[in-house]
Amino acid sequence: MITVLAGGTGAAKFLQGLQAVLGAETSRLTVIVNTGDDLLWWGLHVSPDVDSVMYGLAGVLSRERGWGIDGDTFHCLDAMRRLGGPAWFSLGDRDLATHMTRTALLASGSTLAEATAELARRFRVTARILPMSNDRVETRVTTPAGELAFQEYFVRERHQVPARGVRFAGAESAHPAPGVLQAIAHASAVIIAPSNPVTSIGPILAVPGIREALRQTPATVAAISPIIGGAAVSGPAVDLMRSQALPASAVGIAQAYADFLDRLVADTRDTSLMPDIERLGLRPHFCETLMTSLEAKALLAAETLRAAGVELVET
Amino acid sequence: MITVLAGGTGAAKFLQGLQAVLGAETSRLTVIVNTGDDLLWWGLHVSPDVDSVMYGLAGVLSRERGWGIDGDTFHCLDAMRRLGGPAWFSLGDRDLATHMTRTALLASGSTLAEATAELARRFRVTARILPMSNDRVETRVTTPAGELAFQEYFVRERHQVPARGVRFAGAESAHPAPGVLQAIAHASAVIIAPSNPVTSIGPILAVPGIREALRQTPATVAAISPIIGGAAVSGPAVDLMRSQALPASAVGIAQAYADFLDRLVADTRDTSLMPDIERLGLRPHFCETLMTSLEAKALLAAETLRAAGVELVET
Repeated sequence: MITVLAGGTGAAKFLQGLQAVLGAETSRLTVIVNTGDDLLWWGLHVSPDVDSVMYGLAGVLSRERGWGIDGDTFHCLDAMRRLGGPAWFSLGDRDLATHMTRTALLASGSTLAEATAELARRFRVTARILPMSNDRVETRVTTPAGELAFQEYFVRERHQVPARGVRFAGAESAHPAPGVLQAIAHASAVIIAPSNPVTSIGPILAVPGIREALRQTPATVAAISPIIGGAAVSGPAVDLMRSQALPASAVGIAQAYADFLDRLVADTRDTSLMPDIERLGLRPHFCETLMTSLEAKALLAAETLRAAGVELVET
Repeated sequence: MITVLAGGTGAAKFLQGLQAVLGAETSRLTVIVNTGDDLLWWGLHVSPDVDSVMYGLAGVLSRERGWGIDGDTFHCLDAMRRLGGPAWFSLGDRDLATHMTRTALLASGSTLAEATAELARRFRVTARILPMSNDRVETRVTTPAGELAFQEYFVRERHQVPARGVRFAGAESAHPAPGVLQAIAHASAVIIAPSNPVTSIGPILAVPGIREALRQTPATVAAISPIIGGAAVSGPAVDLMRSQALPASAVGIAQAYADFLDRLVADTRDTSLMPDIERLGLRPHFCETLMTSLEAKALLAAETLRAAGVELVET
């Protein structure tokens, strides 16, 4: 069993590559997904990272946008804007069916994990997608304008306000979703996807028990750095890492996960960081990490599996 | 003040004509709308007749369909169908914004009347739209396949199962929405729109107090027959009228409203019914009632106002 800890866009692209490499073995893949940036929007329970991962694995993720469904339209959003309703968070018309289905399942008594499994089944995803927790954990960002919910910071303010701190409200009393700890404990390899370590992977690690499980698993734990040459491929990772006193580089990724990480996959552009990474007791694995095509995604997945010591049997 | 009792499609078309005739005086128009076929769909409170009336007066009602928003798309519905979700009731993508706004207003404590007023304001409708009641009244149709909610009968079964009876669950304990009784009592004319008398106007009349107010109002009460030559212009009115032992003709309309009606507007094709209508103590007013264009709608509205004794001052 291979277990991946995942945020949104970057993780979804990586998982597409992993699925291409694993083929029919994708059914042995478990993805534990951040739900710290879930939100109630238009009365609907939206799980942005779960959806990006699910759409990615289902092959319907928008390539241009990196979120939502490929070819989706935004007529409901436009109508909402004309009605003077809240419109800063974009939900596509097809995407809405996902959120309405999830909201209906939750309203009928399903847990978030059960609703996620049901949606994944309907999207014919063969990998197992687990939300990090069935309990509400809310990522909140401290800014000069006050504390914002993650999507307020990320989407509404386009992460243009300085991030001074991050907290995960509710995390202390949250429980890992059923199967999460086992998926880490019994994996042959655990992979931390190329996601923002602060607000994508951070909320997962904040759920009591998960970080401990990562420290204790006999599996090799490998992370892919989402930072190349001091810049994030997308999103506000650099700002958020600095708010946590982490260097905005593959070294910062290594530091963030130092207590449980075995291997760090970093970009060939960052080989100069090798001494700093080794100083943390980690063996870096350098390769091309920009996922500009399905081939590039699959190559990165194969390199990561190799770094994690997973042998793929050609079928 | 002119007060109209309204169902869906036929009423919406008539109100478009009335608005064209009244011009700026439309602000003196109150429309009391059937909510007996409201339904919870995808977790949203949908008020089909309120929406048809509102969209009609806002000038965005689909002409082809007679319901929903002109030019709307159905991508969310298609996605819901692909996900194996409920899909027999069609909501357009733009239309969804209306239902989500209504549902949010109700969830935040608004009454249905308050939510309706707020939506009408946002759609820049100057007439006052009142739901018949803030309380839940559910039109249910008895069929050989059991009792169905109105939309199950009308949309899901395409009214192809025989209707044997109709009841309005909850009506006995419902109260007219604030302003409804006053709008009837203080009107200069009350008009029953060309709507199905059983399941469009019937639920309104079933709310305790409304029928009595119609009997007692000093205003002239005029109804337009939705039946022309023994056939309904649209929908299952004929079947439903027969289930109530009403002749499926303008005479049946006259009978349904006999206890409070002063004038009946019927189609020129039905002048042969004059003796039967007069036998009920009613003076019929014959004119063209098919609303095939805005001009035809306005002409019917003008004829109806004349029949009701309303004098229009040219402005």
